[in-house]
Amino acid sequence: MKLGMIGLGKMGYNLVLNLLSHEHEVVVNDSDHKQVDKIAEEGGIPAYSIREVVEKLDAPRSIWLMVPAGEVTERVIDELAEMMSPGDTIIDGGNSNYKDTLRIADVLKEKNIHLMDAGTSGGVDGARYGACFMVGGPEEAISRHEKVFQDVAVENGYLHAGDVGSGHYLKMIHNGIEYGMMQAIAEGFDVLEKSPFDYDYEKVAKVWNHGSVIRSWLMELTENAFSKDPKLDEIAGIVNSSGEGKWTVETALEQQVAAPVIALSLMMRYRSLEQDTFTGKLLAALRNEFGGHAVVKAEK
Amino acid sequence: MKLGMIGLGKMGYNLVLNLLSHEHEVVVNDSDHKQVDKIAEEGGIPAYSIREVVEKLDAPRSIWLMVPAGEVTERVIDELAEMMSPGDTIIDGGNSNYKDTLRIADVLKEKNIHLMDAGTSGGVDGARYGACFMVGGPEEAISRHEKVFQDVAVENGYLHAGDVGSGHYLKMIHNGIEYGMMQAIAEGFDVLEKSPFDYDYEKVAKVWNHGSVIRSWLMELTENAFSKDPKLDEIAGIVNSSGEGKWTVETALEQQVAAPVIALSLMMRYRSLEQDTFTGKLLAALRNEFGGHAVVKAEK
Repeated sequence: MKLGMIGLGKMGYNLVLNLLSHEHEVVVNDSDHKQVDKIAEEGGIPAYSIREVVEKLDAPRSIWLMVPAGEVTERVIDELAEMMSPGDTIIDGGNSNYKDTLRIADVLKEKNIHLMDAGTSGGVDGARYGACFMVGGPEEAISRHEKVFQDVAVENGYLHAGDVGSGHYLKMIHNGIEYGMMQAIAEGFDVLEKSPFDYDYEKVAKVWNHGSVIRSWLMELTENAFSKDPKLDEIAGIVNSSGEGKWTVETALEQQVAAPVIALSLMMRYRSLEQDTFTGKLLAALRNEFGGHAVVKAEK
Repeated sequence: MKLGMIGLGKMGYNLVLNLLSHEHEVVVNDSDHKQVDKIAEEGGIPAYSIREVVEKLDAPRSIWLMVPAGEVTERVIDELAEMMSPGDTIIDGGNSNYKDTLRIADVLKEKNIHLMDAGTSGGVDGARYGACFMVGGPEEAISRHEKVFQDVAVENGYLHAGDVGSGHYLKMIHNGIEYGMMQAIAEGFDVLEKSPFDYDYEKVAKVWNHGSVIRSWLMELTENAFSKDPKLDEIAGIVNSSGEGKWTVETALEQQVAAPVIALSLMMRYRSLEQDTFTGKLLAALRNEFGGHAVVKAEK
């Protein structure tokens, strides 16, 4: 089918290549016009404004967004909503908070514009050669786009998860699980690192990827990482996070679900961002107060 | 090669079938003689005592143990050590604590009997058709047995991890990581279970196994579990543990490594074993003491 793609970052750009290789026609737009020109050479139909994307498509239009979640996504959708027609569909492929998705869907519904939320996983290579899509939206919009998703997904890597919002909710949980799995792997290797044995971590990750219970794509990535840098000497242990881990924990709190491992995985990332912590200072101060235990003076 | 196998439980039994299918000769023993007779029909050479295993092998002997870790393993090794000759090898395929393995190896070394510790992962199917083996031991013993391990492992599923003890240590960490990964997956589905959406968990696990970052064997097992029982109505959430998760946490404490996710995964299992907890009682009592908050009376 012919559709629009707004947002030609790493994910969007590769997704367009994926769509083009499946014989879809894609009207492409990004605020960085160089990206538009670059992908036009690969067969994308260039559009240098959001209006141009809308104008180059016939109703019922389908416009896929791969732009940063939050403010940018909302601004683009607001702009699109002014120009699009009843029966058109917006696909939000970003990591939007499902509550935003539900709210925006309600607003778009008044104009009879469909919103589909497409949680996307699999990284840049996935976007290019086949990713995992967890998609929410009304049946009418879903049925029109199922074929496109099946084309750009790996086999069995597309799920119509349910009503609008269910795709982003599922992606949020996916990332929460990812945080916990990653932290478990990392802690395990930390206990190895201080062991009395001299392990080759690349080989360890490799053997664990062959026949063991913990074989997984994350363990394959672990193997890759150690193959490049056997002790990760070049990498500082500072771990940022985007929104989904935090939203998973917030959602668990709202639902009163005990999810301590996902919560701690997130908090260990926060801890990694600080060289020293106020918690640590206060604990040291209190030990000094009650027991006279020496404190280490802060360097100024 | 010709070797002995003591312990014909689920893992040992299937490992013997695996060895036999790779043209090895296996002298088999178990305290349950029915198991010995059963596998003799499949081509195993029956032995109804540990002495008989030793007698039916020529030096240098290789005897593989798949018996419960701890007391049973130690008793069998003690008995074997009395009968075996210098240059013989004992392979401990159980989930022994690596500290026991180091201690036992020292004792056996005095008699010039080699100890190899083979951490084994992959479940019953793995034992039968190809598992993951993390093996520690002295070079001399390793080189004599490498071919056997490669035969019964999946491709690339065998690693000589290092000196004796390193195999069991690695298996311990493997299981610690497994605890954390499992808990992360379980928490994620719990937050799904209380979501405003109506997910089909089998389909969710399936789509996550195709192209997503969290694709893994554990997620495949999750898919299997939900295919049999969509809401797990038939299963109580009581989760036992064997030793390795606890040892991972103990080892992290000894090394002063922060491993909160693995620790909490273990403790959530402990929590699952109790319907009510003394912690809960005391918390409720304290809220009552300072705030007059109502307590729920215990049922007698």
